[in-house]
Amino acid sequence: MSLIQEKVKQAVGLLAEFDIDLWLTFTRESAINGDPTLVFLAPGPVTWHSAFLVGRDGRTRAIVGLYDQKTIEDAAAYDGVTGYVKSFKEPLQEYVKAVAPAKIGINFSEGSEICDGLTHGLYLTLLATLTEIGMEGRLVSAEKVVSALRERKTAAEIADIKAAVKRTEAIFRKVAKFIVPGRTEAEIAAFMSAEVKRRKLAPAWDPATCPAVFSGPETAGAHYAPTARRIERGHVLNMDFGVKVNGYCSDLQRTFYVLGEGETDAPDEVKRGFATIVEAVEAARRAMKPGVQGVAVDAIARKIITDAGYAEFPHALGHQVGRFPHDGTALLGPAWEKYTQKPYQALEEGMVFTIEPRLTVPGRGVVTIEDMVLVTKRGAAWLSKPQKDLILIQ
Amino acid sequence: MSLIQEKVKQAVGLLAEFDIDLWLTFTRESAINGDPTLVFLAPGPVTWHSAFLVGRDGRTRAIVGLYDQKTIEDAAAYDGVTGYVKSFKEPLQEYVKAVAPAKIGINFSEGSEICDGLTHGLYLTLLATLTEIGMEGRLVSAEKVVSALRERKTAAEIADIKAAVKRTEAIFRKVAKFIVPGRTEAEIAAFMSAEVKRRKLAPAWDPATCPAVFSGPETAGAHYAPTARRIERGHVLNMDFGVKVNGYCSDLQRTFYVLGEGETDAPDEVKRGFATIVEAVEAARRAMKPGVQGVAVDAIARKIITDAGYAEFPHALGHQVGRFPHDGTALLGPAWEKYTQKPYQALEEGMVFTIEPRLTVPGRGVVTIEDMVLVTKRGAAWLSKPQKDLILIQ
Repeated sequence: MSLIQEKVKQAVGLLAEFDIDLWLTFTRESAINGDPTLVFLAPGPVTWHSAFLVGRDGRTRAIVGLYDQKTIEDAAAYDGVTGYVKSFKEPLQEYVKAVAPAKIGINFSEGSEICDGLTHGLYLTLLATLTEIGMEGRLVSAEKVVSALRERKTAAEIADIKAAVKRTEAIFRKVAKFIVPGRTEAEIAAFMSAEVKRRKLAPAWDPATCPAVFSGPETAGAHYAPTARRIERGHVLNMDFGVKVNGYCSDLQRTFYVLGEGETDAPDEVKRGFATIVEAVEAARRAMKPGVQGVAVDAIARKIITDAGYAEFPHALGHQVGRFPHDGTALLGPAWEKYTQKPYQALEEGMVFTIEPRLTVPGRGVVTIEDMVLVTKRGAAWLSKPQKDLILIQ
Repeated sequence: MSLIQEKVKQAVGLLAEFDIDLWLTFTRESAINGDPTLVFLAPGPVTWHSAFLVGRDGRTRAIVGLYDQKTIEDAAAYDGVTGYVKSFKEPLQEYVKAVAPAKIGINFSEGSEICDGLTHGLYLTLLATLTEIGMEGRLVSAEKVVSALRERKTAAEIADIKAAVKRTEAIFRKVAKFIVPGRTEAEIAAFMSAEVKRRKLAPAWDPATCPAVFSGPETAGAHYAPTARRIERGHVLNMDFGVKVNGYCSDLQRTFYVLGEGETDAPDEVKRGFATIVEAVEAARRAMKPGVQGVAVDAIARKIITDAGYAEFPHALGHQVGRFPHDGTALLGPAWEKYTQKPYQALEEGMVFTIEPRLTVPGRGVVTIEDMVLVTKRGAAWLSKPQKDLILIQ
């Protein structure tokens, strides 16, 4: 079964669970401004206004421009595909009238960007289209359906993520031998990018910051491109990196210590910082199971860091991973306004999360680990081989 | 001056022209669901809720998550960059209150997808944020500003498009020697994709259909992936193809005729169809100048095709090209509902359009030319070397 067939089928079940009669994904020129959900509904971009309709009763329909019709038909995921030339309105109105749904779920959400694929202009167009048939009052957010569709990973999705993790770990092992004092952050990043290319993989995010490489104290912080700063002895180096396999991402961070002249191990303050991070990651993982809220998991790790005397990390403890490195709605995050309601979503079986606390060791650099776990019935299982030891650079 | 510096400066002038006091681009996790306008405002994706503010008085500000702050500062396009940790709300409200704009333009549009970058969920968030400071009634669509920013191409943008056109033409010339009866559409596409790669270019759109290759009668129509259909003598072959240079696209179509055994020229019905297309393209081009509506240009080409006894083409005559192969708002299109008001926008100096009528020659295939023009004060100037002759395959 293809991804699209599998996801359309999964959606039907979710509609019953979340009490929505008809799920309507509405998009146009999706290469410009596409709904991130479209990848589960169509094998490629669509051009003119397009509607993908999945009913609670299992009936499905796509209404697309004439030139996209055959491509969508080939996906063999819909009972029918309507190809129009002049207007999507009549076929859409006709179909919705026939289904007569009490609740029509559409892809918008204030709290979850991944469920917020409908643009405001398209919302207005859809509202006007449904008002003409007296159904404007039936629109509801499909957030719960879209979230679950992305978050409850199928075996195939988990296999792809595991493959992406394995390849990321292999490249981290390889670059550990390339890091030597005097090399620049940018050179290290270029080495890894070449490995990505050589293995015919794609970086998991914007190649300007994938990998991100930070060495020593006073780095720019996350999401910044690698610089011409040279690796120095006695500094901590950390990297954030991931790849994509079949469209599914990994997202891992590793911390290295560049041994000073004559040193055979990291100094105590670096070891203590690293041990604190390892403890925080493991405590968080042990707290994760279906039903728990992310805000509680975040608090456990955050407290370990602050109790040890470090400043709290200025971001969430962990996020979901899927087709995007930041995916899904539920978040292992603090109750900060920008995170909306995401930290209060209960964890569910099949979710894939990162755990990534950080702290600064003054004069040395930033210590951070990011490992990935799968939420199972019995708790969170490692998807990556968790970093338990500092990687020492001679 | 960088693209971002140039476009922010250009935007200031557009705000006065279109009577908007403050232009506010609001986005989050832009790698997932980004506003297509962001590329003119930031050097890469942003993560947390981010606001880019350009004032009619020339004052500018970016409000972004802490981890994006340094990247945006490096772009040196804003008077100030605020990096926040917990909430974008307070810094945004404070800045907007200080500016006290009568009209706040935001990126939504029913009629123009390229100006419709704000998601509905983010619109609701922004509305609530501005309601708290009593400014919710000041929101207007920034469509005219965003359109003009994309459509009035700078010299640098035109140079990139010209370079993309040149490279596309070179690959078309090369593939003409590769096409022989018996080769499949997919093989021809693969040859072109390899040329794209070899020249370190990127395809202008989804590589599954860039190039699109259609041979003989009863093809799937535009936007369909190349198939295992073999090139046959006596058939017409057409291809749709473009590349990107510095983020700017080309989009060209060429028609080939595969000579039958003993033929030295195409048969009369193919020549007549091709001549009709050439005539339609040239008549449309001659009609294009600033102030003319696209609907009038479309009608001229459409009438030439139907007067010659062919069915009208089921799409617009031409679209703008820019950072996307389908870009801008103004369209050379018919008054069909799905095209909204786009065909009624007046052409302006600096717009780049395709002209791409098509017709079917029964039993032979689809004849179509797509060439590109730049609207100048004195009319439309070719950006591509227009196809005037069928390319004959021995």
